[in-house]
Amino acid sequence: MSEPFAAVDVIMTKRDGGRLSEAQIDWVVDAYTRGVVAEEQMSALAMAIALNGMERPEIARWTAAMISTGERLSWDVLNRPTADKHSTGGVGDKVTLPLGPVVAACGAAVPHLSGRGLGHTGGTLDKLESISGWRASLSNADMLRVLQEVGAVVCAAGSGLVPADRRLYALRDVTGTVESIPLIASSIMSKKIAEGTSSLVLDVKVGSGAFMKDVDTARELARTMVELGTDAGVTTVALLTAMDRPLGRTVGNALEVREAVEVLSGGGPSDVVELTVRLAREMLEAAGVRAGPDPVEVLRNGRAMDVWRRMITAQGGDPRAPLPVAAHRDVVVATASGTVTALDALAVGTAAWRLGAGRARKEDAVSFGAGIELHAAPGDTVAAGQQLMTLHADDPVRFARAREALAGAMAFDTEHRVLPLVLEKVSA
Amino acid sequence: MSEPFAAVDVIMTKRDGGRLSEAQIDWVVDAYTRGVVAEEQMSALAMAIALNGMERPEIARWTAAMISTGERLSWDVLNRPTADKHSTGGVGDKVTLPLGPVVAACGAAVPHLSGRGLGHTGGTLDKLESISGWRASLSNADMLRVLQEVGAVVCAAGSGLVPADRRLYALRDVTGTVESIPLIASSIMSKKIAEGTSSLVLDVKVGSGAFMKDVDTARELARTMVELGTDAGVTTVALLTAMDRPLGRTVGNALEVREAVEVLSGGGPSDVVELTVRLAREMLEAAGVRAGPDPVEVLRNGRAMDVWRRMITAQGGDPRAPLPVAAHRDVVVATASGTVTALDALAVGTAAWRLGAGRARKEDAVSFGAGIELHAAPGDTVAAGQQLMTLHADDPVRFARAREALAGAMAFDTEHRVLPLVLEKVSA
Repeated sequence: MSEPFAAVDVIMTKRDGGRLSEAQIDWVVDAYTRGVVAEEQMSALAMAIALNGMERPEIARWTAAMISTGERLSWDVLNRPTADKHSTGGVGDKVTLPLGPVVAACGAAVPHLSGRGLGHTGGTLDKLESISGWRASLSNADMLRVLQEVGAVVCAAGSGLVPADRRLYALRDVTGTVESIPLIASSIMSKKIAEGTSSLVLDVKVGSGAFMKDVDTARELARTMVELGTDAGVTTVALLTAMDRPLGRTVGNALEVREAVEVLSGGGPSDVVELTVRLAREMLEAAGVRAGPDPVEVLRNGRAMDVWRRMITAQGGDPRAPLPVAAHRDVVVATASGTVTALDALAVGTAAWRLGAGRARKEDAVSFGAGIELHAAPGDTVAAGQQLMTLHADDPVRFARAREALAGAMAFDTEHRVLPLVLEKVSA
Repeated sequence: MSEPFAAVDVIMTKRDGGRLSEAQIDWVVDAYTRGVVAEEQMSALAMAIALNGMERPEIARWTAAMISTGERLSWDVLNRPTADKHSTGGVGDKVTLPLGPVVAACGAAVPHLSGRGLGHTGGTLDKLESISGWRASLSNADMLRVLQEVGAVVCAAGSGLVPADRRLYALRDVTGTVESIPLIASSIMSKKIAEGTSSLVLDVKVGSGAFMKDVDTARELARTMVELGTDAGVTTVALLTAMDRPLGRTVGNALEVREAVEVLSGGGPSDVVELTVRLAREMLEAAGVRAGPDPVEVLRNGRAMDVWRRMITAQGGDPRAPLPVAAHRDVVVATASGTVTALDALAVGTAAWRLGAGRARKEDAVSFGAGIELHAAPGDTVAAGQQLMTLHADDPVRFARAREALAGAMAFDTEHRVLPLVLEKVSA
C-alpha cells in the first residue's frame, strides 16, 4: 500500500515553521496510529510543534484527526442535555466527585470519562477506587444505562476512545514534548469531544501545583481549548482557578473521598463548595438547563447525595462502607506563631505523592489511605505548637521524604494576601 | 546501574533554549550509543538542537563525546605529516581520486576514510568499486601498511569509528533533523578527528547541487567545522566552492574514475584540475610540507599517476583493467543555438541517480557504468542539433525519467556569467 506522504517531509514542513496541510495532518496522525510513522518520527514532529507551534485551523484539524482514530460516543438518546467538566489537574482537586451528582440532581446528564493520576496530581479514578467494590471500567452500554438511571457516571475511557492520544501521550511523556499548548489542547479536547458531551466546562488550574504556572499561559491554553470545543459544536467555557495552594483540606485518595462526601452532606471546606457550585452553574448554563434547582439547593436538601450513592452503587461500590485508613500518622506542628500566608500546592502534592497517594510509573499501585490532612490554610492564624498537618502513610519510612518536600511550603507573616479562587472566565 | 541524568531533562534543557552541560552531553551521547536513551528521545533532542542551536563549547563537547564512543586512530609512526580533505558532497565531485595521489607525491600522507553515496551525490567508495577487484574494507593495520608503502589510502570507515554517529546519522535521516549546522559539523568532524589526520582541508560546496544552498549557511558550517578541528588540535581550513553546476564533464561512478585518470595523466577538465591543485596546495600548507614538488608538477611528470596505480593495486584493484560501461546510451541535443549560461547541478545529479548511478536506500546496488557525460558546460556556445549530454544506463527505460529531471536544467542566453570555482577561504 502506497502512502501519500513521507513522514520526513511532514516533519520538515513544521521544522521550517510552515503550516501543515489538512491532508498532511490527517495522514500523519492516522499513519502514526497504524505504526507507519515511527515513534522517533512522531517525537521529532512533536518537538517541532512544541517549538514552532500550530495555528488555530491546524490544531482543530489535528484534534479531528485524533478523534477519527477511534470511536465517538453519542448520548442523543438521553432525554436531557449532557454537560461535563475537565480539570487540568491540581492538588486536592476532588471536585469531580460531588460535581457530577450535583449537576445530575439539577437536570443535566454528566458522562464523565476520566484518567488515573501520574506524578504529584491525583486521578479521579484512583480516588473512587478507594471505595469498596467500585470499578472504573464500564462498557458503552453500561455507561448509557447508568446515565439513564442515575444521571451521572464517572468511568475509565475505553481503549477505543482516541487511540492516537493514548500512544502520543506516552511518547510525549518521555521525549520532553508534554509542554506544548497545541498538543495539550488537542489531547484533552479530542477525548472530551469523542466522549460525546454536548457542553463542557474547563477548569484550567494556575499556580505552583498546576501544569500551567502562570495566568498568561493558562489563558492561552483555555482559549485554545474553548475554540476547539466551539469549532467542534460543543458549547465550551473555561475558568482559570487558583492552584497556588491545595484545594480543600485533604490530599490523597480516601481522604479526598471523605471530603467530597462532606460537601455532598452540605458541609465541607468553603473553597471546595465554592468551586463545585460555580462549576455546576457554568455546566448547567452551558447545557441550557434553566428550569432546575440551584446547585446550592441540591447540596443542602440531600438530592446530590442521593445521586452520589446511586452512582457509586451502579458501579459496584458501597457508598456506606468505611474508607481505607493508612496504618501510620505523623503530625506536623507550628514552630512559631503567625498567620499562614502561603501553602505551596506543588510541595503538598509532592509530599502526598511520596507518602504513597500517587504513582511514579503507570504500573504502580497507589495507597488509598495515604495523604495529607491540612489543619491550617492561607489566612489562618496559628500558635506555636499547633497542628498544621497530619501525614498519613502505610509505611512510616515515607514520612521523612514527605517532610523534606514540605520544607518551606508554608509561609507565615503578619500580613496576608490570597488569590481569589476563580481568577477569570474564558468563553467563545 | 543508575544513570546520572534522565533523558527527558536533557531534552527539556535544549527545548527551553538552555545550554547543555558537559556532563549532560557526555552522558546523553554515550547513553544513546548504549541504548539507554531511546531513538524517540534522541530524535526529539536532535529536533530541539536543530531549532535552538548549540553554542561553540557545546558543539565541541558533543563532537568529543561522539569520538569517545569509538576508537581514535593515530598515524604518529609515519615518517611524514598527514593531511586529508572532506567534501560536503557535490555532483561530479571526483576530486578525492586524484587528490590523494597528488598530495602523497608531494610529500604528505593521506589517510582518507570515506562513505558511500545516498541520494543525488555520489560516494567515493562507489566510484572506486567500479575498478575491477578494488575493495573498500581494510583493517587498521592494512591501512597503516598502505600509507607507509604508498602514501595515500582511501577506504571505508570501520564500525569502530564513531559508532554514535553511525546510529545518529541514520536517525536524523528519517526524522527531518539532518539540516542542523551543529549536528552536521559534529558528524563530519568527529569522524575526521577520530581518523587521526593532523591537518584537514574542508571543501564546503555551495549551490543547487550541494547540501548548503547559499553562501551564508555554507560559511557558517565552514567556520563551525574549522573551529572544531582547531580546538581538537587538527590544523583545519575550509574552501567554499561552487556547486551550482556539476564539477567536470562526467557524473557517475566509472565515468568519473575515467575523468580522474585523465587528470592524473595531465589532462582532464580545467575545473577538476583547478580544484585538485588548489586543495592539494591547501593540504600541503596545512600539513607544513614546503620542501616537496608542486601539485601541478606531479600531475605533469606522472608521479601522481604512479601513486594512484600503487594505491589501487594495494587494495586489490587493477588500475589498467577496462572500466564498466553501461549497456545503453541516449544523446540529448540542443534544440536551438546559444551560449550555455547555467547547468543545474541538482538536476544533473538527480538525472544521474535515476539512471542508476546512485542509490535510494543503503542496501541498493549502484550501476557502475550509469551516469552522464556533459558535452557542454556554462560558457560554451552551442548550435542547434549539437550534442549536449550523453546519458548512460543499463536499462533503457530509465532514460525517460532522467530526461524529466533534466528539463530546464540547462539555460541558454546571449550573455554569460559563471561563479568562480573557489568562492572564499575560511581559516582559524
